Amino acid sequence: MMNDTICAIATAPGTGAIAVIRVSGPKAFEITDRLFNPANEKKQLSTQESHTVLFGHLEKEGLLIDEVVVTIFRGPHSFTGEDSVEISCHGSGYIQQKIIRLLIDEGCRMAQPGEYTRRAFMNGKMDLSQAEAVADLIAATSASNHKLALQQMRGGISKEIDKLRTELLHFVTMIELELDFSEEQVEFADRKDLKELATKLEKRLHGLTSSFCLGNALKNGIPVAIVGETNAGKSTLLNQLLNEEKAIVSNIPGTTRDVIEDLVNISGIAFRFIDTAGLRQTKDEIELLGIERTYKQIEQASIILWIIDSTKVTEHIEWMAERIIPRSKGKTLIVLFNKTDKITKEEQVVLDNLFKNYSNHRLHISAKKGENLDLLKAELLEMAGLPDLARQDIIITNLRHYEALKLALEAIRRVQDGLRENRSSEFLSQDLRECIHYLGEITGVITTEEVLQNIFQHFCIGK
Amino acid sequence: MMNDTICAIATAPGTGAIAVIRVSGPKAFEITDRLFNPANEKKQLSTQESHTVLFGHLEKEGLLIDEVVVTIFRGPHSFTGEDSVEISCHGSGYIQQKIIRLLIDEGCRMAQPGEYTRRAFMNGKMDLSQAEAVADLIAATSASNHKLALQQMRGGISKEIDKLRTELLHFVTMIELELDFSEEQVEFADRKDLKELATKLEKRLHGLTSSFCLGNALKNGIPVAIVGETNAGKSTLLNQLLNEEKAIVSNIPGTTRDVIEDLVNISGIAFRFIDTAGLRQTKDEIELLGIERTYKQIEQASIILWIIDSTKVTEHIEWMAERIIPRSKGKTLIVLFNKTDKITKEEQVVLDNLFKNYSNHRLHISAKKGENLDLLKAELLEMAGLPDLARQDIIITNLRHYEALKLALEAIRRVQDGLRENRSSEFLSQDLRECIHYLGEITGVITTEEVLQNIFQHFCIGK
Repeated sequence: MMNDTICAIATAPGTGAIAVIRVSGPKAFEITDRLFNPANEKKQLSTQESHTVLFGHLEKEGLLIDEVVVTIFRGPHSFTGEDSVEISCHGSGYIQQKIIRLLIDEGCRMAQPGEYTRRAFMNGKMDLSQAEAVADLIAATSASNHKLALQQMRGGISKEIDKLRTELLHFVTMIELELDFSEEQVEFADRKDLKELATKLEKRLHGLTSSFCLGNALKNGIPVAIVGETNAGKSTLLNQLLNEEKAIVSNIPGTTRDVIEDLVNISGIAFRFIDTAGLRQTKDEIELLGIERTYKQIEQASIILWIIDSTKVTEHIEWMAERIIPRSKGKTLIVLFNKTDKITKEEQVVLDNLFKNYSNHRLHISAKKGENLDLLKAELLEMAGLPDLARQDIIITNLRHYEALKLALEAIRRVQDGLRENRSSEFLSQDLRECIHYLGEITGVITTEEVLQNIFQHFCIGK
Repeated sequence: MMNDTICAIATAPGTGAIAVIRVSGPKAFEITDRLFNPANEKKQLSTQESHTVLFGHLEKEGLLIDEVVVTIFRGPHSFTGEDSVEISCHGSGYIQQKIIRLLIDEGCRMAQPGEYTRRAFMNGKMDLSQAEAVADLIAATSASNHKLALQQMRGGISKEIDKLRTELLHFVTMIELELDFSEEQVEFADRKDLKELATKLEKRLHGLTSSFCLGNALKNGIPVAIVGETNAGKSTLLNQLLNEEKAIVSNIPGTTRDVIEDLVNISGIAFRFIDTAGLRQTKDEIELLGIERTYKQIEQASIILWIIDSTKVTEHIEWMAERIIPRSKGKTLIVLFNKTDKITKEEQVVLDNLFKNYSNHRLHISAKKGENLDLLKAELLEMAGLPDLARQDIIITNLRHYEALKLALEAIRRVQDGLRENRSSEFLSQDLRECIHYLGEITGVITTEEVLQNIFQHFCIGK
């Protein structure tokens, strides 16, 4: 498979001014050369230096297809590490398809999703976590997940993991030496040092796995549930935040039955707002199902926005509080008094006092008029509990890494137990090996075809 | 305006593996240099040779934005003729926008639609008809319009027009010399030669303007109207041809009220199939409106497909024929006996005889089963009356060129009249000048800001 020369369109699908087609593999120059005629007759693709471009005609049997610019990258100095050509053509879908077909006719194979990055990994241009970061980088839609992907692509996580792994490898070698001399009861590996390393490692692995919750939120958006009575203005608020009419707004109570959600980028941080079915006492079965889902959404959110119609605060509020407050424990609950433009200042103060016990975060807003939504956004940013991303803390965003780290953490905890209980070198060695194995999985030192397939199938073709 | 340095995303919008951002203008290197940090410390963008690429970091105040590849084109050896840089970055929308914003912060201006091509024209890299061909090339969706755009981009039309224009310029100079000696009744320009040139020119301009009808059809698709009784299978046929469910197919007579059309690429030629409202005697007003539209579509089409339900040929056919036949005069009418799988061979022969007088083109098909649709396609290709595109005939596809050619043709005809009537040099000179003017408009030797704006506003940004 690695001996094939592959081709694919690398730019976004559709029509643009230009498009770029990537050719990579041992025959990249030979194949492109057969279709490419440089404008400068003295030049030739096959003898051209790396990192240079040539202008000319892409043609087949004298039939001109397009005027193109080709860029030559000689392996290993290319993205994939192989000989590569990038053909920059006019961005018509017709031309792009035509060139791809000609390349295939000349012996290229259509690249599989992520195959360029996979080859870069196979050729040692990057480790596995860096390869995964390429996909994250392309998918980045906010400053925070762009930053996290970039950090991972530059090897932030890999360096940390490699360092820990190397230290463990040293110890495991020592311990395994002991096995050879098992009858002599020697200890090549200093148990005190090993204990210290295990403590350090446990702390670090615990820190990294804990960061996943935040990393995942940053990557997929911090979940914010908007809850409240029917007709309190939940959908209107969501629409204001989205600046578009995503949720159907109507004044018929119970319009929103499905859970609607969308990402809003506030100062570079992605928030995933979840509009929920209005809470009220009802016997309508479909509506009851919606309310059940609302409870689940509250439990899964990090921040809850309880939106209240300022003009209709009745004894019903208590019924609401009984449902919302217990489910918000350990989360941030922000109370939003909506339709504030319709009540007096005095009434605002009364309301504020009434809800003092429910939450310290209370805002008077008008979702319809967009009043005080800037205050809400500022509050959300503060409540998101974000670390200073500039400090370059390593944050785990990848589920695969998280799972490997969790298994590594469990293994190192068994090592700690073993040390405490003075277990034999054999036991220790086994757990240490396991920990090393899982750390290796993250960077791809240890990998299987299945793992690779799982990772690269989610890439786009052309990357 | 031409002194600004401009930037824009040149690849298709959306997320791809990579995206390309173009920077062009006097400060292209200076501005990019401020944001770009080459991986190889010995290299520097500003001193880098033309047509080479550099890998490195795009960053602002130490904050990494992306790992990019930049390509350097030194003017005049670039598309625009100016100093240009192409930044190839990861294809996330976030990154693309971020880089554009940084470039603007550093002094770039966002390019206007077609501004790169406009600059190429202003800097003499291509004439106006070639510039227009760039947009056509990008929009090309079939082999034929790809070929026409490419021919125009390579200067096929320009060369022809320039040649004619130069010959006319020679004569007009001679004739204008006569004006200086008007009292002496000399003739520097041989009237016989001029007559010959005018005849040649008239013939050529007539040929070119006539080609527009075909050129336009090739560019926008040859219009084919599918007409027939309600429920004869029009929508089913269109869907078969489109290979997708674009028209709503149902067996309720009168389902298709709106005119539905789509392009189908048959052997590289675009056909624009137009599904029409079924014809039948009805009093339903909305349906009557649809039928009115059907009549118009027949008149505007080049080819008419009259589809008939083979199982239901009644006296109603005559009513249909009265409506279809007169409107099909001068066009190709193909009669399609649909649902042919439901009748016997003998019945087919009877039907065939019955329609002999209506059209020589008759096919028995099954739209539902796709039977004989290959025969239909072959018939369509033959009936399209296409010239052999390989013969490199010049075909006018651009409305602006057509209008200029028509005015040039009218002017040359006035010259012919003048010569016949032995008009004075003054009269001849005026008409000749007018002809030269209109020919010059095509290649852009003569142009106005308004014309340029009109042309380039239809380009995409980034081209």
